[in-house]
Amino acid sequence: MTDKPRNWRRATDARGPLTRRELLAGAAGAISAAAVAPVSGQQSVDTTRRPGRGPSEMDQRSPFVTLQRDPSATSSRTPLQDLRGTITPADLHFERHHGGVPEIDPARYELLIHGLVDRPTVFSLADLKRFPSTSRICFLECSGNLRRGGPETLPQMVCGLTSQTEWTGVMLSTLFDEVGAKPDATWFLAEGQDAAVLTRSIPMEKAFDDAMIVYAQNGDALMPGNGYPARLLLPGFEGNSSVKWLRRIELADRPFMTREETSKYTDPLGDGDTMRQFSFVMDARSIITDPAYPRVIEPGWHEIRGLAWSGRGRITRVDISTDAGTTWYPADLQAPVLPKAHVRFRYLWNWPGERSEIMSRATDDTGYVQPTWDVLREARGPRTRYHQNPITSWTVGDDGRVLFGAERLRS
Amino acid sequence: MTDKPRNWRRATDARGPLTRRELLAGAAGAISAAAVAPVSGQQSVDTTRRPGRGPSEMDQRSPFVTLQRDPSATSSRTPLQDLRGTITPADLHFERHHGGVPEIDPARYELLIHGLVDRPTVFSLADLKRFPSTSRICFLECSGNLRRGGPETLPQMVCGLTSQTEWTGVMLSTLFDEVGAKPDATWFLAEGQDAAVLTRSIPMEKAFDDAMIVYAQNGDALMPGNGYPARLLLPGFEGNSSVKWLRRIELADRPFMTREETSKYTDPLGDGDTMRQFSFVMDARSIITDPAYPRVIEPGWHEIRGLAWSGRGRITRVDISTDAGTTWYPADLQAPVLPKAHVRFRYLWNWPGERSEIMSRATDDTGYVQPTWDVLREARGPRTRYHQNPITSWTVGDDGRVLFGAERLRS
Repeated sequence: MTDKPRNWRRATDARGPLTRRELLAGAAGAISAAAVAPVSGQQSVDTTRRPGRGPSEMDQRSPFVTLQRDPSATSSRTPLQDLRGTITPADLHFERHHGGVPEIDPARYELLIHGLVDRPTVFSLADLKRFPSTSRICFLECSGNLRRGGPETLPQMVCGLTSQTEWTGVMLSTLFDEVGAKPDATWFLAEGQDAAVLTRSIPMEKAFDDAMIVYAQNGDALMPGNGYPARLLLPGFEGNSSVKWLRRIELADRPFMTREETSKYTDPLGDGDTMRQFSFVMDARSIITDPAYPRVIEPGWHEIRGLAWSGRGRITRVDISTDAGTTWYPADLQAPVLPKAHVRFRYLWNWPGERSEIMSRATDDTGYVQPTWDVLREARGPRTRYHQNPITSWTVGDDGRVLFGAERLRS
Repeated sequence: MTDKPRNWRRATDARGPLTRRELLAGAAGAISAAAVAPVSGQQSVDTTRRPGRGPSEMDQRSPFVTLQRDPSATSSRTPLQDLRGTITPADLHFERHHGGVPEIDPARYELLIHGLVDRPTVFSLADLKRFPSTSRICFLECSGNLRRGGPETLPQMVCGLTSQTEWTGVMLSTLFDEVGAKPDATWFLAEGQDAAVLTRSIPMEKAFDDAMIVYAQNGDALMPGNGYPARLLLPGFEGNSSVKWLRRIELADRPFMTREETSKYTDPLGDGDTMRQFSFVMDARSIITDPAYPRVIEPGWHEIRGLAWSGRGRITRVDISTDAGTTWYPADLQAPVLPKAHVRFRYLWNWPGERSEIMSRATDDTGYVQPTWDVLREARGPRTRYHQNPITSWTVGDDGRVLFGAERLRS
């Protein structure tokens, strides 16, 4: 380590008036290194004494970085508690599969568009890439993205089935012009090339709004788990409708009533007599990603950080409560705030060292306000499984341990 | 493959009037799969017949994707010709090292801020993360980012020392408030923990404008080659001044005249009697990334695609010439256009099948226009090595082969 001046201090030792300096004074998080750092401040290895490794074809994460998506049999969840900013590295984007990840040779990839069209056409990947292209940063979220749990539940487990990358591809409307979509086409079927041959019916309005067929993610080719070499992208819609490994689109004058829109992804309401079907749009939602389980905090200033998003448009505000929802204060939103995109919110909080329940509440530009769990359960009934976007919370005990939710939110 | 209707066609076979359909009709690129795809259109493996691999802790690129940064002894260059959109995957961000990549244990990381300050302070990585945070998407570019070459020169080789990710960290001004920067401090020294102990002097104005100390890149921790666990980030400034593996900042009332601002990164002008020193800001620049070497194109419609950026602010326009600079037409810019950021431009071009020289020219919101090579050489003289941002071009031969530059631009 470099020589220190005579009067130096450690930031973690600093004490001062109640200013931003308190952020350092009080807040020793679970990830604090101060407790384990040698008092001498010496590095065990002086990295200035010998050259490091040279440039490589591709960089690799530091061996000290141990992120992972915690895979289950059918999904893997983005580690929201470990991420900062709004972009998700493509290899940490969540996955939800119905038949595993197919390995597809891009030279043999074909997309057929047929049905109510003038010119049924097969597109190669090279064909798709030659069309006028567009790029868009937006979130994708699985409609089943809520898992309640016990006190020791990570943000990743609560709602790690949402991620955000920059997608590049061709507008679906461009391809529909190319094949000559007939005026009586009102729905189209999207079919994947996975072992589930996943199919969804999508209203034509979406094709002429903002639907895309994408072949790039964060600049690079799509990840295999996210549809390589090409997928549908329906910004703001539930994730499964953005069909991965897309091989066929069929235009028709009615929905196709496939398995994934009848036996699944349809929500029984109230006592189960009424159903919500084709509930595509993901409503506004937010989650505090820090402090969250498993952090342990000390009294003083903390920046409450999290993500908010809405499938209907732009997030216009995020409010924070640190007293279980009694009072709310607006958080700062990181610019640029993009439509149908994750936005990072931040709020400075001076934790007094007493038991507190902290929560965030998103509002979008349609005026929609993220509901409480009680309101949501009242509206949807107990049997609904999808599109659950309740306000969730973290409880900070008087010992500083941060745990998931309050009793009423846990499962 | 799915069953095809009786009257289907291949997009690559389609012929029609001069519309967007021509994009498909004419343009068979070097990467076209059509030439090798079997006529039957059958996949050799039917991916719908057996389940694919399940979810994983971290996704991995398809084995069919073979990007790499083409490392030399001291740098590795982003493969611009293969990327789409504006985000660079962190593992493909360019690197330029002066002493290799040190491996740093984040638990032992320390940053000392001292000199003309009231409270010399050592910050741990956890300390830095507790301060109010901000995120920013911006480019980083090496000041030596021009390599002229022969006809067979890739975009990656011409100017692959520029990349863009989303960075998250703490504003340097926040830390300077914390340590009590004295009013007579006019410069600060930034020192890295690499074997070169790279040092640069930076004017204090930059600290109070938009300088940051960042610890995250595209959401995740910094890549080792990009300064893990923490680096300085000076948006719009030449890359080497954003000191990686930052271990020390010293405030003073003068620049320190280090090796990297005297013997290097200083530009002899004209006959060498005058020098340009502390030329931090990267001027506006652009490059066409497609079509570019090694593409071979066919007559018809093509989307000319590329990147433009300016260290002084926002790109306001990019003009395209397809006749060696005689006439210019505005390209479309992908929104959002962020300051000091790569912007993706696109321009539809109907290549007539004759020898053509295509080029792009960026303008930023200061009114600065990217210069020609002749103008730049006239202003800077023959001995300058850094900050060369000339208009570069690609020549499309009448055989459709795309080669670097015209004779006068090649080395």
